[in-house]
Amino acid sequence: MTNAAAAGHPLATLFAPTSIAVIGATEKSPWTGFIAKNFRDFGYQGKVFAINRAGIDVLGMKGFASCRAVGAPIDLAFVTVPQAAVLDALDDAAAAGVRNAVILTAGYAEAGSEGVASQQALLEKARALGMNVWGPNSLGFNNVTARAPVSAIPALLPLLPPSIAIVSQSGATASELNEFAHSQNIGTSFVAATGNEGQLTLADVVDYLVDHDETRAIAIFAESIRDPARFERAAARARACRKPIVILKIGRSALATEVAKAHTGSLAGNDTVFDAVCERLGIIRVFSTEDLIVTAGLLAATGPLPASGLEFISISGGACTLVADGAEDAGVCVPPHSADVAAALAAVMPGFGSTLNPLDVTGAAVRDEMLFERVLPIAASSPDIGLIAVNLAVPVVEGQATLPGALTAIGRTVATLGKPAIMVLTTARTLTDVTRRAIAEHGLPHIVCGIDVMLRAAGKAAWWSARLDTAAPSLLLAQAAIDPAERPPLATERAVLDHLAARSIPVIPAYVVKTRAEAAAIGDAGPFAMKILSPDIAHKTEAGGVRLNVAREVLGEAFDAIVDAVAAARPDARVDGVIVSPMREGGVELLVGVTRDANWGPTITVGLGGILVELVADAATAPLPVSAGEVRAMLAKLRGFRLLQGFRNIPPADLDRLADIIARIGDEALRLGPDLESLEINPILIRGDEIEALDGLVSWRD
Amino acid sequence: MTNAAAAGHPLATLFAPTSIAVIGATEKSPWTGFIAKNFRDFGYQGKVFAINRAGIDVLGMKGFASCRAVGAPIDLAFVTVPQAAVLDALDDAAAAGVRNAVILTAGYAEAGSEGVASQQALLEKARALGMNVWGPNSLGFNNVTARAPVSAIPALLPLLPPSIAIVSQSGATASELNEFAHSQNIGTSFVAATGNEGQLTLADVVDYLVDHDETRAIAIFAESIRDPARFERAAARARACRKPIVILKIGRSALATEVAKAHTGSLAGNDTVFDAVCERLGIIRVFSTEDLIVTAGLLAATGPLPASGLEFISISGGACTLVADGAEDAGVCVPPHSADVAAALAAVMPGFGSTLNPLDVTGAAVRDEMLFERVLPIAASSPDIGLIAVNLAVPVVEGQATLPGALTAIGRTVATLGKPAIMVLTTARTLTDVTRRAIAEHGLPHIVCGIDVMLRAAGKAAWWSARLDTAAPSLLLAQAAIDPAERPPLATERAVLDHLAARSIPVIPAYVVKTRAEAAAIGDAGPFAMKILSPDIAHKTEAGGVRLNVAREVLGEAFDAIVDAVAAARPDARVDGVIVSPMREGGVELLVGVTRDANWGPTITVGLGGILVELVADAATAPLPVSAGEVRAMLAKLRGFRLLQGFRNIPPADLDRLADIIARIGDEALRLGPDLESLEINPILIRGDEIEALDGLVSWRD
Repeated sequence: MTNAAAAGHPLATLFAPTSIAVIGATEKSPWTGFIAKNFRDFGYQGKVFAINRAGIDVLGMKGFASCRAVGAPIDLAFVTVPQAAVLDALDDAAAAGVRNAVILTAGYAEAGSEGVASQQALLEKARALGMNVWGPNSLGFNNVTARAPVSAIPALLPLLPPSIAIVSQSGATASELNEFAHSQNIGTSFVAATGNEGQLTLADVVDYLVDHDETRAIAIFAESIRDPARFERAAARARACRKPIVILKIGRSALATEVAKAHTGSLAGNDTVFDAVCERLGIIRVFSTEDLIVTAGLLAATGPLPASGLEFISISGGACTLVADGAEDAGVCVPPHSADVAAALAAVMPGFGSTLNPLDVTGAAVRDEMLFERVLPIAASSPDIGLIAVNLAVPVVEGQATLPGALTAIGRTVATLGKPAIMVLTTARTLTDVTRRAIAEHGLPHIVCGIDVMLRAAGKAAWWSARLDTAAPSLLLAQAAIDPAERPPLATERAVLDHLAARSIPVIPAYVVKTRAEAAAIGDAGPFAMKILSPDIAHKTEAGGVRLNVAREVLGEAFDAIVDAVAAARPDARVDGVIVSPMREGGVELLVGVTRDANWGPTITVGLGGILVELVADAATAPLPVSAGEVRAMLAKLRGFRLLQGFRNIPPADLDRLADIIARIGDEALRLGPDLESLEINPILIRGDEIEALDGLVSWRD
Repeated sequence: MTNAAAAGHPLATLFAPTSIAVIGATEKSPWTGFIAKNFRDFGYQGKVFAINRAGIDVLGMKGFASCRAVGAPIDLAFVTVPQAAVLDALDDAAAAGVRNAVILTAGYAEAGSEGVASQQALLEKARALGMNVWGPNSLGFNNVTARAPVSAIPALLPLLPPSIAIVSQSGATASELNEFAHSQNIGTSFVAATGNEGQLTLADVVDYLVDHDETRAIAIFAESIRDPARFERAAARARACRKPIVILKIGRSALATEVAKAHTGSLAGNDTVFDAVCERLGIIRVFSTEDLIVTAGLLAATGPLPASGLEFISISGGACTLVADGAEDAGVCVPPHSADVAAALAAVMPGFGSTLNPLDVTGAAVRDEMLFERVLPIAASSPDIGLIAVNLAVPVVEGQATLPGALTAIGRTVATLGKPAIMVLTTARTLTDVTRRAIAEHGLPHIVCGIDVMLRAAGKAAWWSARLDTAAPSLLLAQAAIDPAERPPLATERAVLDHLAARSIPVIPAYVVKTRAEAAAIGDAGPFAMKILSPDIAHKTEAGGVRLNVAREVLGEAFDAIVDAVAAARPDARVDGVIVSPMREGGVELLVGVTRDANWGPTITVGLGGILVELVADAATAPLPVSAGEVRAMLAKLRGFRLLQGFRNIPPADLDRLADIIARIGDEALRLGPDLESLEINPILIRGDEIEALDGLVSWRD
């Protein structure tokens, strides 16, 4: 049975049921066959009841005409009847005291507007009955460590020691991921297909799995995150327990969003924001099924890595060049050996080998299998090495030629290194019973198949490990928002800038003049930039409302010209005057925008330089709030960051001051409350330590 | 035996020997064991002789004390003796009439300067003896279709029908790639490890493989291309035969370059240039071992694709979203179904399925296995579909639950589509004898394991197929270079621009003035840009030699100021005067540079906008010559291309004219002959159809 912590979870009777009624069990349904086989394959020790109209036994499950007829407690109803019979089935189950239902039946929200209505009716029924509902359109889940299958996802035998949990919105994909994990000799502790997530979502099972001790890492395949708040809570708990979450979430393309909607009725959401959320929550995001399982499996095997460097050791120079070539793209640090380490290696290596990292021990290891025993402790000794990867063939089929002495040397030695170590096969491969016997015989560590996927997994593992102990600000801070009644309208550029100025954010000084005479009376030296002030005009240049480089002598003339041009172009627009500011040139322009993501709430985006943002989409995004330190990290991610470091004739920016100002803009956006739709400061002009917001725009939700 | 075309190849007795002497064969060497096992496993029908000092038989190979003692013709000597004995072995072989040697012995160019000298001596010996040499430091090759193994790369049984050739500079990697291919049910026709390539290189075996009919695609792992000219010739022949070459070449990182040097003594070369060379030669470049084999195996199975679109059909909505999400990054076009196709699909699909591409037929196919028979012909019918991929589990282990009826329906139907079709498994997997039986039973097409790798392979296959019939200009055009004696020195900016102007390339007009009076006498309106004219000063601004926006009235003053500033900053520099040009502003700046790559000769690079080139490395490179059409394609690749299409207040560039000018700059660089080190035009200013070179710089090889 499962562990104590998980047993105390509010959803424990759902996820680890001790009695299950399969509603709609019939011999002619292939689904019933899959389910019944699972009870046998997992060796389920609880009670199982087959509910069908005739009340007959099915495939070894005792038959009843209804849940009420069972006459014994039932933890969970597994509903497999056609849609038309589902509501009655729930009524029956509830009447028998069942509190949990897993609904395999499809044709709900994934199937157009009629299906959406059916799902709505289903959820209302569940609410009325006070029932937890998993699905609909879900293949269910297997609690492997509790030997409790509530699913049509097949057991894979032999069951391997539990290591990772798999949570997938797609049932077929849950099954595929499970098979792939098994093929990589990665055991699963729990496999869940969440389906349409009408009521319970993947966040709920992730929350349960945080308590599930046998689960050492959680691998998620998702099309959408339906309940961001619960998901974030679960992720925060996982992080606090140092339990990694790895997620493969689609949504990079418009086509994927469309396909996902047709699949489980889900909305993928803004992908850039999701990236930022993962970074904030310390969730590892990957982009292929293989990366998902291999990364989770790696961290389940190694735990947090003690340092970010990878030491790679191989008998193959080709494998070494592949690692050297791919490491950077995979975000993997392969630190060079110190002179001491290189000298120590040279003393124990054959003549032809180099002493670089990656370390090519050459074919000499064919004749000298104990070479690994001499080399490994030296190569692994640097404190900047957090993971040792040894590349050598392990047997996957009977009779495969390998170097057994070398495998024994590796197995014996890695156990003494005091650091995580893995074996790496050069290419993708299925690990088999033959491999498992070799692992036992030689004491081999965790095996990863494929240099490329290993590099990506090692890069992600190092990233996750390094930020485990950094502070994790919540996305859901209770903001001290201002009273909506006192919310300033901020209808014009100048109103926005004045508001920011009052919050100690530096803005460009300005006169607002309402007459030609007022304009002409300005005594500053100039030149000036002049802009129309109107709550009705967002695009001032197009309306003829902007003049740049205006000399002091012609301010009056320019005032008239602007007012006349705007009157001609936009006769309906209210005009509150003309803004006169000192002309600014040179420096770097930065854009700061706060927008509200439908899933994740307010996010802040910074981008550098007009052309870079527009042509190269050079911007970084984070959920609010952000600290000044986080803003510095965002700025450093920009391709155009060098513009801020001093570039050609542009002086280096005061980055601390800039980051502080941007963080305060984010704080102020939060303070303006949940009705703020967007706040855009474009540009902020930066010339060394002179930093000024030049323009601002606010919009509110209706 | 191998086919007639390959039998006529100049290297046929090397690559398909009918008699082999293994020099250094002894029972105690593991290498001899590997080699002898290969002769047995492949069923080699030629004669094999074991050469060792004692002249004794070894592992079933008839023993002799020398090649001369054999007394029968020997096609090939396989040299496995220690380095000190290699030269004598070659002497002996040559004396016995042997023309081909494969040298396994290591410790040559890969092992530092002493090894380089040993290799040099080896090659001189071979040249003196008139011998073809393969290696040294090479595991040799297996000509699988000729059943002729000359290697320590193990045979993998059962031998699968030949499909791809594997050529690798690394021996261990050759073996790994071979194993991976076998695990993907991809048979190999030829497997070669080229090692140090002292004399014969991978280009030679690729050339042979073009004639090798059983080889349907060539997969290469390379650290460097040692003989670009021969490689290019072989690639051009392969392209003419519509035989795809797929290459995994390292060199992306500095670390990889260092490691490769230590491995096979090779220099990786400029990676950007190699990218451009692959594009020019129609070679598919990949970045992982799995992509290498899967892409080659796909094209070997399908041949050129008739159209670029992919149709993906699955029982799993999750797999469909993965395809939709990954297609764009993989360069795969997944065209939407036409209204007609969608309507036809809707008529035969179950209620819950959508009719998008990727097509989710849903779990309904579990009950209705014939669904694929109805759906496939419709989904594959659009002329824009060139590859059909069906995602459904196939058995890989005994007793695995699959849908046999669906597999039969798929096998039967794909054979009738008249287009390439494949099966796709969702994740990486090893295909087995169980799979092969299922393939035979159901008539299944080629199987690719893993959605991600399938997408990348399909994208590359479509790219390769689409450009098979485009013209392929040679990299090695005999250029009508000018007589070196008549080569202009082009020592100054103005000399370069005047030279280009004489070749009808538009350049900014200029006066060259030598005195203050000449400067003051210029009658044009201005304003002007003024620059010092000196063959000794490359960085004019730093030397005080540039003034911009000079009004006509102050030309004389500015002349003095420039001359004085330069005299102060660079008192040693020769000064030929001052260039006075009209001041240009606005528009887009383009950089055009021609440089000479050590491997591939002159290449041209175009980059847009100073900041984009410098911060984002926004540039495109191609080997010369380039046509105007190719330049257009290069420009369109730039992130900043939108700047040329009309952007904000910048008018759209005359792209035809611009491309023509750039192509002519490339032609002129070629005409300047092989001593040209570099020619840089920076910038070319573009304002609509006004295109002008503003500055130019030439350097020559010493």
